[in-house]
Amino acid sequence: MTDTERLLAVLREDAARIDAAMREDLQSLAPTVDNLLLEVLEYSLFNGGKRIRPLLVVIAARLSGRDDDEVYQLAKAFEYLHAATLLHDDVIDNAETRRGKPSVNKQYGLVTAILTGDFLHARSMAIVGQIGGRDALALFSGAATGMVDGEFMQLRNAGIYNLSESDYHDVIIGKTGMLIAAACEIGVVCAGGGALERRAMCVYGTELGCAFQMIDDLLDYQGDANKTGKSVGNDLAEGKMTLPLILALHQADQKDRERLLAILADDSARRHAFDEVYNLIDKYGGFTGTRKRAENSISIAVKQLEIFTERVSLQDVAVLQGLAEYVLRREK
Amino acid sequence: MTDTERLLAVLREDAARIDAAMREDLQSLAPTVDNLLLEVLEYSLFNGGKRIRPLLVVIAARLSGRDDDEVYQLAKAFEYLHAATLLHDDVIDNAETRRGKPSVNKQYGLVTAILTGDFLHARSMAIVGQIGGRDALALFSGAATGMVDGEFMQLRNAGIYNLSESDYHDVIIGKTGMLIAAACEIGVVCAGGGALERRAMCVYGTELGCAFQMIDDLLDYQGDANKTGKSVGNDLAEGKMTLPLILALHQADQKDRERLLAILADDSARRHAFDEVYNLIDKYGGFTGTRKRAENSISIAVKQLEIFTERVSLQDVAVLQGLAEYVLRREK
Repeated sequence: MTDTERLLAVLREDAARIDAAMREDLQSLAPTVDNLLLEVLEYSLFNGGKRIRPLLVVIAARLSGRDDDEVYQLAKAFEYLHAATLLHDDVIDNAETRRGKPSVNKQYGLVTAILTGDFLHARSMAIVGQIGGRDALALFSGAATGMVDGEFMQLRNAGIYNLSESDYHDVIIGKTGMLIAAACEIGVVCAGGGALERRAMCVYGTELGCAFQMIDDLLDYQGDANKTGKSVGNDLAEGKMTLPLILALHQADQKDRERLLAILADDSARRHAFDEVYNLIDKYGGFTGTRKRAENSISIAVKQLEIFTERVSLQDVAVLQGLAEYVLRREK
Repeated sequence: MTDTERLLAVLREDAARIDAAMREDLQSLAPTVDNLLLEVLEYSLFNGGKRIRPLLVVIAARLSGRDDDEVYQLAKAFEYLHAATLLHDDVIDNAETRRGKPSVNKQYGLVTAILTGDFLHARSMAIVGQIGGRDALALFSGAATGMVDGEFMQLRNAGIYNLSESDYHDVIIGKTGMLIAAACEIGVVCAGGGALERRAMCVYGTELGCAFQMIDDLLDYQGDANKTGKSVGNDLAEGKMTLPLILALHQADQKDRERLLAILADDSARRHAFDEVYNLIDKYGGFTGTRKRAENSISIAVKQLEIFTERVSLQDVAVLQGLAEYVLRREK
């Protein structure tokens, strides 16, 4: 077994326990809730998700010395909230598919997608309040409102082509960083960990989430469609100001900058000038700059783990390191 | 001052304190959240709502001996969740207006309506968890999931014309009763009231909510458009099986029953045969039966208040009685 295989094996076992906690919960709901609702819950929760957020809860709790069944019960709430967000995102984007299957809005309709999202949202809050307690709920609901705020910032930023790196950072912290940070920190909270550990895991999660998003932005330009399952250029086509483009615009000379802005302002050009934009981003180091920032985030994340290395569960520290490095390596 | 005026004056003062708590909360959010989000929160929260749910929290808490500022802080969460539900309902129904103004989905778009609903949803949970504690959150989130379940039951019931009274009852308890019951019970919980008081206020709220819904169903057939602000016949046009129709179908002879079913099954007939359906419902006592059931619910509700009459706040008992009776009298 290679190191990577060993890491994956640990995660697989934890992921199976998280899935079991979710299935148990759905079974407990079955006698009282509508059959269609139950079917859609099943459809949207068991669709091949990697369970990253609940896994982080479990690992963080274990690092802080707790590893019982209740941790998995708590952890599932993060998959619920994540799934609720995806359900509403797919309605908002009128998405056709989600992980290779028809999206809930296409398969069951908009009404069902909105309502099932609301159900999962409420149930996730109930679980965190019940098992995690007051501090955990404050973090969790703060991440939920932060995600909405991130979406609003992104709406506001649409069409603003001189976006600063800091504006970009605010959006990705809201949209991706806060929930991942909350997963990490709540794992510590539920294990009764101290302020130092909470802080370390919160930073770890925030930086991991940001790096994840930056690599996502890179893959949208540089990904291999055979591996990612999506064609490149979607962000550009939508006029989304992601980090590679932001960095290139800041570095470009006046002529290239004006050319980029002209393409961005033109709906059709955005769809047809991908190669030209790619080359300009490359020319001005937008891709290397983005990767460098992601690497920097990951090195900050990994550094947080130092305080845990005196503990027993060195394997879990290794898993968190492995996850962090995986974010940089991933091709899909 | 008449009794009614006195009751209204008490409610007005409480409602103003609830509004103040909401405004204070929005102000506390202002430095950190997106401006558009803030504007939409303001638009959807301050639009002439009667604040029934938060008022019930405040009154129930006072009956159980608590009346400080924190109760109003807690109470506002019920208006938030209610507003979140209305935002998503209006998206689902593609509604043009809400209380005489353009709906958020029309004024600001679908994306904004969904996201603002999600924000209010999360914030309401955070508040109840923080101020109300674990029991309160379990009741509150249970009401939130119950509302979704009620919507699903209603979807399932669409087109089922032999609906039983009990199916109807399940839907209105989910859609309306549970949140009103939770408001009443959580008021008691936050004041440290006992199991007897909790039970009494839970039953009061459930019955009040059900009666409210039944009268709503009546007004959709019998209301005066000048007072309700809506034309009659919407439920029939949509094929919605409300109590007057359900009761009439159960009583009708075979010929009339078949005629009603023929109209219900025909999209165009439902829109044009209002008078005929009205007369058939009337012939078979659908309206009087519905009113009788609403009166019965209200008398059960009022009966619950007896255990509180040894307490100091007789005025609040009177307010709850007044509210219950108002539900039967209301014309809009």
